[in-house]
Formats: sequence, structure tokens, C-alpha cells
Amino acid sequence: MKLRPLHDRVVVRRVKEEEKSKGGIIIPDTAKEKPQEGVVVAVGAGLLDDNGKRIPLDVKAKDRVLFGKWSGTEVTVEGEELLIMKESDIMGVLDAK
Amino acid sequence: MKLRPLHDRVVVRRVKEEEKSKGGIIIPDTAKEKPQEGVVVAVGAGLLDDNGKRIPLDVKAKDRVLFGKWSGTEVTVEGEELLIMKESDIMGVLDAK
Amino acid sequence: MKLRPLHDRVVVRRVKEEEKSKGGIIIPDTAKEKPQEGVVVAVGAGLLDDNGKRIPLDVKAKDRVLFGKWSGTEVTVEGEELLIMKESDIMGVLDAK
Amino acid sequence: MKLRPLHDRVVVRRVKEEEKSKGGIIIPDTAKEKPQEGVVVAVGAGLLDDNGKRIPLDVKAKDRVLFGKWSGTEVTVEGEELLIMKESDIMGVLDAK
Amino acid sequence: MKLRPLHDRVVVRRVKEEEKSKGGIIIPDTAKEKPQEGVVVAVGAGLLDDNGKRIPLDVKAKDRVLFGKWSGTEVTVEGEELLIMKESDIMGVLDAK
Amino acid sequence: MKLRPLHDRVVVRRVKEEEKSKGGIIIPDTAKEKPQEGVVVAVGAGLLDDNGKRIPLDVKAKDRVLFGKWSGTEVTVEGEELLIMKESDIMGVLDAK
Amino acid sequence: MKLRPLHDRVVVRRVKEEEKSKGGIIIPDTAKEKPQEGVVVAVGAGLLDDNGKRIPLDVKAKDRVLFGKWSGTEVTVEGEELLIMKESDIMGVLDAK
Repeated sequence: MKLRPLHDRVVVRRVKEEEKSKGGIIIPDTAKEKPQEGVVVAVGAGLLDDNGKRIPLDVKAKDRVLFGKWSGTEVTVEGEELLIMKESDIMGVLDAK
Repeated sequence: MKLRPLHDRVVVRRVKEEEKSKGGIIIPDTAKEKPQEGVVVAVGAGLLDDNGKRIPLDVKAKDRVLFGKWSGTEVTVEGEELLIMKESDIMGVLDAK
Repeated sequence: MKLRPLHDRVVVRRVKEEEKSKGGIIIPDTAKEKPQEGVVVAVGAGLLDDNGKRIPLDVKAKDRVLFGKWSGTEVTVEGEELLIMKESDIMGVLDAK
Repeated sequence: MKLRPLHDRVVVRRVKEEEKSKGGIIIPDTAKEKPQEGVVVAVGAGLLDDNGKRIPLDVKAKDRVLFGKWSGTEVTVEGEELLIMKESDIMGVLDAK
Repeated sequence: MKLRPLHDRVVVRRVKEEEKSKGGIIIPDTAKEKPQEGVVVAVGAGLLDDNGKRIPLDVKAKDRVLFGKWSGTEVTVEGEELLIMKESDIMGVLDAK
Repeated sequence: MKLRPLHDRVVVRRVKEEEKSKGGIIIPDTAKEKPQEGVVVAVGAGLLDDNGKRIPLDVKAKDRVLFGKWSGTEVTVEGEELLIMKESDIMGVLDAK
Repeated sequence: MKLRPLHDRVVVRRVKEEEKSKGGIIIPDTAKEKPQEGVVVAVGAGLLDDNGKRIPLDVKAKDRVLFGKWSGTEVTVEGEELLIMKESDIMGVLDAK
């Protein structure tokens, strides 16, 4: 069983502390809103624009992304804890140099 | 007698705990907003876009869907308890792999 | 004298408890917002879209409809108690199977 | 001197209780917001749509209309008490059958 | 020195009580919001529509207008007290019959 | 070093009391919001409209403008105190007759 | 590892006090909202307009920018403290004369 997000939603698996790559993102304790690191699992087909065409999402499966701490809704699919959120909750993508 | 939802509304039958498929969705107690699992019973014809064309819905009858715990309005049609909600309240579809 | 609703408004006559068809809608006491059952008496000509064309309403006179308990404004025309509301306050239509 | 309303505004003369036609509108005391009965005195030229064309109003002078109790602003032109309101404050028109 | 309003703004000179024409506007004390009478001194060039064309204003210099009591900002240009407000704050124009 | 405002922003140098031209703007103490007088130092390139074209600003450098007392953000560039605000915060331009 | 901002977001490195160029921006203590100085590190590809075309950003990498004190979210990428914010949070660019 697989969770397919609707419209402009994205399914994200949160990256655990120990999995974080060296030299990766560290969230300072003083940050007002601490962004979280995750990996995109599935993306929706996109919203429809005024001409009825899909607006494809800018993130794709396997992208390593940053998102706000309180973003999304937690679900568990086949034992795996996931988050489902809107693409607009994603602030940026971490690219390997 | 059958309930036909208007515009972008969807009629959903909530899935009871015992009916949930094995390996399916488990909602952790710590979730801020617990999504609910349900099955789509009927969908509206869609809203009209700027050119007067219907925007068809992305979910269809029999889709197994996730939605927010407080989404929708409860109605009972011929003894069956149903929910009527907007499609935007639906977060994702559970596809068989 | 007849009440003609403007734009996207609808005139509805609330269905009294005893008039409800058997096997019809029962509103559970636990519902957050109890939908009401009514019959459409008159509909407006619709709003104008961006091109100046009318957007016709999706409900028509004699449709049996569900709407939120607090929707609409009560008026009495020639002794008959009616409700005038926007079409967006109507959640669905009850079709005979 | 005559009051010409701008854009989508309407000038309305409130109908006094004794002037109300028999079999006309009676507003129940239990109504949440009691609609008022009035006669349209003058209408604006309408708002401009995206193409710069006027959107004519759906009500015209002499129409008998219903509007919310708190709608509009009271003015007195040459001794006559009038109300100036937006057309969207008008709920419906009372047509002679 | 002359005050030229921007966009959809209008410069208005408030009409003093003694200047009010006979048979003109009287604002009842019971009004929720008392409209004020004034004369338009200058109008802006209008906002731009989606096609980059100016939307001309519906009022012009010398128009006698009604506006809400709390509308606009007071300025004094060369000893003359004026109000600068948006055209949407103007409710209607008083035309000589 | 020069401050170039983005989009629909404007850089304004506040006019000090002693610099105000005779017969110029006097702000009465009773005004609800006292407009301020200033001179435009730099303007942004304008926002993009729906067709991707720049919407040029209606004010230009050296224009003498009125703006709300609380409009804009104060910055000091090379010892000069300036304000950076949106063009919509500017109410009007003072033209020499 | 590199942080690529999505849509209309911008990654900014805050300029420390000692790095500020002479004759540069000084933020007075009396300012309501103190703008901050920074250098753009990376910009998003831009939002999509109604025709599906990217709206490129007006700032580019290496631009020296002003932004509100509370704008953006703090992240640390490979030991470097950065801010990720929307372009609309940026008030202006500091150009060398």
C-alpha cells in the first residue's frame, strides 16, 4: 500500500539525527522556527492552472528538503512514519555539490 | 435516496478500525492532527474555471483516502453514516501497490 | 408576490421533521454542525464570470438539498417561512435513486 | 438635487411598516438577522470588469428589495430618508406574481 | 503648489455646514456612520488594469460627493484644509436635477 | 554606495520642518494620521504584471510626496537618513503650480 | 552540500558588524523595524505566472541586500549560518556607486 498525495502535496520521510550527512544542516537552538531535514517520498500531480493544465511540482522523489518544524501531518504507512505537507511548506533542496 | 455532493465536495464513508487493511495506515497518538481513513462514495461535478469549464476532481468513487479528523460534516443517509467534505480536505489516496 | 433571489442566492423551504421521507437523512446528535434538509423554491440567475457570462447555479427549483444549520436568513413571504442563502451554503442534493 | 450612487452601489428607500403590501414579507422575531424591505431609487453604473467593461447591476429603480437590517448608510436628501448600500447587500427582489 | 493624488485617490474639500445648499443632504443623528459632503478638488490618473491600461475614476473635479465620516487623511495645502481619500470611500455624487 | 529599492518600493528623504516651502503643506494637530512630506530619492523598477511586463511607478526621483507618518522603514546610507516604503504608501505628489 | 531555495526564496548570509563597509548602512536605534544587511548566496528559480512561465527574481547571488530584522529562517549549512527568506522580504539592493 502506497500513499499518493493529492494536488500540490508532498510525502516526506523525516531524516533522523544519526542519519544526517556530515557537514550537513545544523539547526541552531536560537532559531525562531527550526527547519527540519527530510527526503521526498512522493509528490502530487500538481494543481491546475487557469487553463486547466497541471503545474508540476519543483521537488521530486528522493530530493533532500528543508521544511518548517510544524509543517505537515504525521501518518504511518506500513510501519513507516511519514509526513504529508504542501510543497509551499518546503523551503529549499539540499543538492550534493 | 442518494446524496449527490455539489461542486468540489466529496461524500466519504469513514473506515472503522477493524476494517483497516493490514499494513495500512496507523495514526500515531502524538500526531498534532490525526488523519482519518475513508472510502469515497460520491464526488461532485467540480467547480467551474474562468472559462466556464468544469474542473474535474482528482478523487473518484471507491478511492481510499486520508483526511483531517475534523474535516467534513456528518450526515446519515438511509441508516449509513457518511461525511461530506471539500476535496481540498483530502490529503492523499492510498493505492494498492 | 414572489421572492426572486439575486446572483448566486437560493430560496429554500425547510423540510419539517414529519415530512422527511422514510429512509432519508437523519442528523446524528453528535454532529458538530447539523445539516438541514430543505427544498429549493427559487434560484438566482447566477454570478457573472470574467467574460460577462452568467454562471448558472447547480441546483434548481424542487431539488431536495442539505445545508448548514446556521446558513441563510429567514423571511416570511405570504405566510410561508423561507430561507434565502448562497448556493455555496448548500452541501449536496438528495436524488431519488 | 439627486443622489447618484457610484460603481455597484444602490440608493434604497426603506418601506415603512404601514406601507407593506398585504401578503407581503413578514420578518419573524426569531430571525438571526432581520431582512428589511425597500424600494430601489437609483443604481450605480456598475463596476468595471477586467476588460474595462461595465458590469451592469441586477436591480433597477422601483425594484422592491430585501436587504440586511444593518446594511447601508443613512442619508437624507431633500427631506427624504434614504439608504445607500452595495448591491451585494441586497438578497432578493419581490416580484408581483 | 498643488496636491496631485496618486492612482485611485481623490482630493476633497469638505463642505462646511453653512455652505450646504438648501434642500441638500441632512445627516440624521441616529445614523451609524454619518456621511460627509464635499467637493472634489483633484483626482488621480487611476489604477492600471491587467492589460496596463489606466482605469479612469468615476468622479471628476467639482463633483459634489458623499463620503464616510472617518474617510481620508487631512492635509493643509497653502492654508486650505483638504482630505485625500480613495475613490472607493466615496459613496455617491449629488447631481443638480 | 547607493540604495536601489526593489519592485514597487521607493526611497524617500523626509523633509525637515525648516526646509518646508512657504505656503506648503501644514499638517493639523487634529489629524488622525498626519501625512509627512518628503522627496523621492530612488524608485524600484516596478512589479511584473500578469504578462511579465514591468508596471512602472507613478512617482519619480525628485518628486515631492506625501506619505503616512508610520509608513516605511528607516535606514541610514552614508550618513543620510532615508525611508524605504511601498509606492502605495504615497498619497500624493506636490506639484509646483 | 548546497542549499537551493525553492520558488521565490533567497538564501542570504548576514553581514556581521565588523564587515560592514565604511560609509555603509547604519541602522538608527529609533527605527521601528531595523533592516539588516546581507549578501545573497543563492536564489530560487522563481514562481510560475498564469501562463506557466517562470518569473525570475530581481536579486542575484552576491547582491548586497537589506531585509527586515525578523525575516527568514536560520539554517546552518556546513558550518555556515544562513537565512532563507522570500524575495518579498528584501527591501533593496546596495549598489556600489
